[in-house]
Amino acid sequence: MLYINSNIWLNINDKQMIRIRYRKLVVLLPSKNSPSPVSLPPNRPRLSTTQLPPSSCHGFSKGSSHFKASFSTRKIPASTSSLSMKEQIEAESRVEHVGLLNAVEDLYEGIVIEMKEPVDSTEFIPSLRASIVKWRQQGKKGVWIKLPIGLVSLVEPIVQEGFRYHHAEPDYLMLVYWIPDTPDTLPENASHRVGVGAFVLNSNGEVLVVKENSGGFKGTGVWKLPTGVVNEGEDIPSASIREVMEETGIDTEFMEVLAFRQSHRSFFSKSDLFFICMLRPRSFDIQKQDLELEAAQWMPIEDYVNQPYNKEHQLFKYVAEICKTKAKMDYSGFSAMPVAPDSGKETYLYFNNRDFN
Amino acid sequence: MLYINSNIWLNINDKQMIRIRYRKLVVLLPSKNSPSPVSLPPNRPRLSTTQLPPSSCHGFSKGSSHFKASFSTRKIPASTSSLSMKEQIEAESRVEHVGLLNAVEDLYEGIVIEMKEPVDSTEFIPSLRASIVKWRQQGKKGVWIKLPIGLVSLVEPIVQEGFRYHHAEPDYLMLVYWIPDTPDTLPENASHRVGVGAFVLNSNGEVLVVKENSGGFKGTGVWKLPTGVVNEGEDIPSASIREVMEETGIDTEFMEVLAFRQSHRSFFSKSDLFFICMLRPRSFDIQKQDLELEAAQWMPIEDYVNQPYNKEHQLFKYVAEICKTKAKMDYSGFSAMPVAPDSGKETYLYFNNRDFN
Repeated sequence: MLYINSNIWLNINDKQMIRIRYRKLVVLLPSKNSPSPVSLPPNRPRLSTTQLPPSSCHGFSKGSSHFKASFSTRKIPASTSSLSMKEQIEAESRVEHVGLLNAVEDLYEGIVIEMKEPVDSTEFIPSLRASIVKWRQQGKKGVWIKLPIGLVSLVEPIVQEGFRYHHAEPDYLMLVYWIPDTPDTLPENASHRVGVGAFVLNSNGEVLVVKENSGGFKGTGVWKLPTGVVNEGEDIPSASIREVMEETGIDTEFMEVLAFRQSHRSFFSKSDLFFICMLRPRSFDIQKQDLELEAAQWMPIEDYVNQPYNKEHQLFKYVAEICKTKAKMDYSGFSAMPVAPDSGKETYLYFNNRDFN
Repeated sequence: MLYINSNIWLNINDKQMIRIRYRKLVVLLPSKNSPSPVSLPPNRPRLSTTQLPPSSCHGFSKGSSHFKASFSTRKIPASTSSLSMKEQIEAESRVEHVGLLNAVEDLYEGIVIEMKEPVDSTEFIPSLRASIVKWRQQGKKGVWIKLPIGLVSLVEPIVQEGFRYHHAEPDYLMLVYWIPDTPDTLPENASHRVGVGAFVLNSNGEVLVVKENSGGFKGTGVWKLPTGVVNEGEDIPSASIREVMEETGIDTEFMEVLAFRQSHRSFFSKSDLFFICMLRPRSFDIQKQDLELEAAQWMPIEDYVNQPYNKEHQLFKYVAEICKTKAKMDYSGFSAMPVAPDSGKETYLYFNNRDFN
């Protein structure tokens, strides 16, 4: 014979739930196919219907005046009579009130909890369970918990409730839980990193090129365009201007996206979008950044294009030839036009301005 | 007087370190500017030089025959004589061997630990500390720990060692630690989600449009292009073809990227790149997907462009007008050409094919 300590949750009002603790007698019948009554379903270790009853369990409670009579009771041991012979729930049930979590609803029937203050897991987890019972009753779908790294002690108990990771940044972890019995349609995490390469052509027909100190080009002697990673929240034109300034000290103005490349599995499992941008220089004197660069210079465009490396590597060959074509003024890339989207946030639309006007 | 229990780590060979536990007597002198000797530096709660001595501590050990004599000793209390009056290290030092972690070096002087098997934190943390001492001596920089969600119990102890989150996917958390005393140059997490909108024009001059069941367009009556999110590892052409097939059952061929838009803070703190793709239909009969769509149809392009919504919203107005211009055949977008980059991975370069050829 095996007793399982378990809970039933009942809704009182918007702010409180009642937890009825009980011990359930389970008769273990050996069977090859049926899982052990204490085993946990895959990916949902603890927020299963065994411990956190869905709406069906709420219906179950409706037939019991014993439970209804306990609504106003606070932490008082309940009757020891068994609830149902069939369920074999026995003696040690007791009832207590549990506070619900403060949460915000999103536009997709989801719930967002932003944790800020430290809280003990023995307080937080009962409130989380009770809140999920309520949200389930309300037909809510995804539950998001944003947990600052300072509250790392809550990660394990929340995962044990059946939550999974969604994404993380240096200072927080986002955990999610899908309530309904329908397939999980929670949106995926960010999938791409974005880079820029800058084609800066001066009025002498020279291109700004650099030799790198580290990475794949270290020691190859290859002269390449200044490149860098677009920061979170940064526009492509700003990123290309910033990278050129950081690496060479040259002040520039953004002109066009000449081409872009998408590649996969470039950073762990993430993909990469890389934009070749044409910039017009506003200054001429190079101030090389020493950390990443061995050298930087203005180089005649033909010399840049005709480097053996560019001839031998298809991607570099095309990029160099596109730059050369653009230098002859007979290539149209995508310009960037600021537009106001519905949200009012600043955004840029990139398109072939020459063909469109 | 205050005693601090602390550790010193000594390298034996590539696989083992010796930990010398000792108590350090600290005389607390009140000072407004100097931090408390037990206070922890910001962002580095525990892997400070107080507890995990850098290479300077290794030099310190070289002068001590007492320590050298202990190399072959296993969990035996060491001499109780103090090591140095100046250091005021006293009585209770003892020495034990600690296994080092299995790890892989990356191309950027970094260390990658992929955890797979369960391990108790009381075993793991001493090995991690010892390994970091060794990597510090070797001049290593970033330490990456990839921790499956099943090993969630290690998250808190690893964070307490000074690691921070880098990123997370549903089934794992990536933690990082920067060893040197130089600024942290670890690469950032993926920053963008990527979406596609499909402009599918048939030979009757009609465009494939849909009405959505949910989201911001629900109930607006607006006919819009089929849209969707690019999956991790998916090419833009494949994503646009897939989305049109999923939503409308229409088989298509990718032609060009007509325009794209970058926006920020569209999904938590992440940015968004959205590509308007022109596709040529290979079939005509629509099979509407019911989950996301209220309706789908072929619509004369003028009717699509002239919808009041498109006139009123700048971004939509431009996109519609670009599509209309393209329908008249006098607009050149970016075509996608497969190129072989150095890594040998398949990748696409997108550029103005008409101007380049």
